[in-house]
Amino acid sequence: MKTNNHFYAVIVAGGSGKRMGNVIPKQFMLLNGIPVLMHTLNAFYTNEYQPQIILVLPESEDFFWQQLIAKHHFKVPHQIIYGGTERFHSVKSALSIITDSNSIIAIHDGVRPLVSQKTISNCFQSALAKGNAIAAIPAKDSIRKVKNNQSEALNRSEIYLVQTPQTFIFEQLRNAYKQEYSINFTDDASVVEKAGFPIHIENGDEFNFKITFKEDLIIAEALLKSNI
Amino acid sequence: MKTNNHFYAVIVAGGSGKRMGNVIPKQFMLLNGIPVLMHTLNAFYTNEYQPQIILVLPESEDFFWQQLIAKHHFKVPHQIIYGGTERFHSVKSALSIITDSNSIIAIHDGVRPLVSQKTISNCFQSALAKGNAIAAIPAKDSIRKVKNNQSEALNRSEIYLVQTPQTFIFEQLRNAYKQEYSINFTDDASVVEKAGFPIHIENGDEFNFKITFKEDLIIAEALLKSNI
Repeated sequence: MKTNNHFYAVIVAGGSGKRMGNVIPKQFMLLNGIPVLMHTLNAFYTNEYQPQIILVLPESEDFFWQQLIAKHHFKVPHQIIYGGTERFHSVKSALSIITDSNSIIAIHDGVRPLVSQKTISNCFQSALAKGNAIAAIPAKDSIRKVKNNQSEALNRSEIYLVQTPQTFIFEQLRNAYKQEYSINFTDDASVVEKAGFPIHIENGDEFNFKITFKEDLIIAEALLKSNI
Repeated sequence: MKTNNHFYAVIVAGGSGKRMGNVIPKQFMLLNGIPVLMHTLNAFYTNEYQPQIILVLPESEDFFWQQLIAKHHFKVPHQIIYGGTERFHSVKSALSIITDSNSIIAIHDGVRPLVSQKTISNCFQSALAKGNAIAAIPAKDSIRKVKNNQSEALNRSEIYLVQTPQTFIFEQLRNAYKQEYSINFTDDASVVEKAGFPIHIENGDEFNFKITFKEDLIIAEALLKSNI
């Protein structure tokens, strides 16, 4: 595991929480008494690769975040960058402060607090070897493609649901984020792929899901309490 | 809702539970103190369309099921059919006892106990109007297709994760299940599609998931207890 590389975790916490039917953005909601985002930062802070943590936050939420840090005596060191209008611009801002070309950078959704140490480590390790590594899990359900009101079965064995971390060597991200923004950029892998780099899949976790609805918080809490 | 049609629910409970690392097949495991399969049968029993229930079970599990029925004083009327080697053969056996050509038939996984009344009703109603209706939810995560070790981003907005019930008019199922079995038949929709009928998607439920791993039972229990 000893390398000359510099490891980073860029945690993207730009969501507005509109879908929760709640004024508190979902990354700040409590999970076992602690804000979701603190679980996420902790996961990277305790990882064996000891990444330097960059948190991308809307400027308007910085003050609230500082209050949460004080209230919860949160000690995980992290640098805050203000996010842009789209995820693409948020990640681009975070990358602007990384200058070491030997860096390996994991980009992770702030609202995926249950990511496992194994997945974080595997993505760092695999990105070192292959240039990038994207956490993803095979589809369990049958999959259909729906277009113009017509549906068509896809071959389930070929379909993967993409998660984060999405981990890349510096070179790939630097090149990819020079591109113009496109609405087809649904994640970092799609940006890097568009720049011409093949994307490698790494095993994700079944429970590394996004906290999107309030039910997801109930599920996450049950999983944490069950100590699985 | 008044029609001359005869409504059926075919509940397929053929799984062996091998993936649970447990000797008890997952459809018999307790969810809030009641076997998973009883939750599922109850959901259809209480539906406004009052479907006649056919349960497809491995012959070797019938005795155990009867013991559970006695133990839990389970009163939901249902007819038992012994399952075949593959889901295809199980469904085919169940269909063999349905003779009314005005039937509308919902086929549902025994291990999806959290299906909502709305989804069951919408599928019956929509199948009446369109010939079939398949519960499915839009993909929340980015989606990749992986083939020969290469991955490629798909257009997420076109991708749906397929659930059950999958509900069909008698005519479509009768024709479709005359076909030879194929390993590409991952669900009933794929069988009916192969027979030449276009497949219609109906809104499924976020929490109408399959109980596959023991963590899924913990999640289902948390959701039931939260009364969402």
